Amino acid sequence: MECPFQKLFPSQLRRDDIFFMSHAYNEAIDAYKENEIPVGAVMVHGNRVIASAHNRVAALKDPTAHAEILVITQAAQKIGDWRLNETKLYVTKEPCPMCSGAAIMSRIGEVIYGFCDPKMGCLGGAISLLVLPEINHRPVIKTDILRDECYALMRHFFETRRSNGNVNDH
Amino acid sequence: MECPFQKLFPSQLRRDDIFFMSHAYNEAIDAYKENEIPVGAVMVHGNRVIASAHNRVAALKDPTAHAEILVITQAAQKIGDWRLNETKLYVTKEPCPMCSGAAIMSRIGEVIYGFCDPKMGCLGGAISLLVLPEINHRPVIKTDILRDECYALMRHFFETRRSNGNVNDH
Repeated sequence: MECPFQKLFPSQLRRDDIFFMSHAYNEAIDAYKENEIPVGAVMVHGNRVIASAHNRVAALKDPTAHAEILVITQAAQKIGDWRLNETKLYVTKEPCPMCSGAAIMSRIGEVIYGFCDPKMGCLGGAISLLVLPEINHRPVIKTDILRDECYALMRHFFETRRSNGNVNDH
Repeated sequence: MECPFQKLFPSQLRRDDIFFMSHAYNEAIDAYKENEIPVGAVMVHGNRVIASAHNRVAALKDPTAHAEILVITQAAQKIGDWRLNETKLYVTKEPCPMCSGAAIMSRIGEVIYGFCDPKMGCLGGAISLLVLPEINHRPVIKTDILRDECYALMRHFFETRRSNGNVNDH
């Protein structure tokens, strides 16, 4: 599917949240072009991107193939441990129930997301899983990084699909 | 690791909840023997087991390799669709935040679990993700199938690990 949005190419010299979220955004553009709901994610460790993926539910016919699950698996392989305490997850949209849970279970240090999802977001948008009283890990949460860009991509994707008569959206 | 519990071999003639949970329980025994937290799961479609797995987080060094995530991916491959409305998930323990979310996102028709997890269970034990007001799918939940057997396996596993001085449990 044609995507009217352009990828971002921030300077390598300034490795801040916007730099890393730009990579996640670029992954979301790849998802858009593949007619997947445009969510992208990267994992960062020691100020380097160690994993990068976008939503592939439709292509893989796998409901667990969200961008976050794919990067968490990749990152754990890179680090050689399922515990990801020293990592940061950047994702364009607030994680769904499954991926919010995955961020907790994999002990990610920090989750940074683009825009909030008041319908399904489980790190503050709809509910927060961090209220679980006996949880043994709580990632730091940061929001609204490249929010407008990440949200515009998602909104345009669904508007285009609806105008094309696709009613089977999830 | 040696496991003092025996696998169950229920009659093939009576394909009820106990029959299918016995398969999940047998998977949990395999997990125990591999020194993985003993959780097993199967997916059922049209009264047949179409997917079967146990927890493999340690072996795969993958925090997403819970029994439920593995069977959901397998089942979607078998069915050829990420939407699993016609399936049932049998799992020995109440799903964690990630796997409770996965059951919702994959639109599983029914989730049947062995014992409740008041610490991390997100289908009624600690909290219920089904209270999300705008969720577009709610599996039917059934609990306490082979509860005592499934729980005894888990309790014995942790007691043995603790008596062996393993303090790195999750």
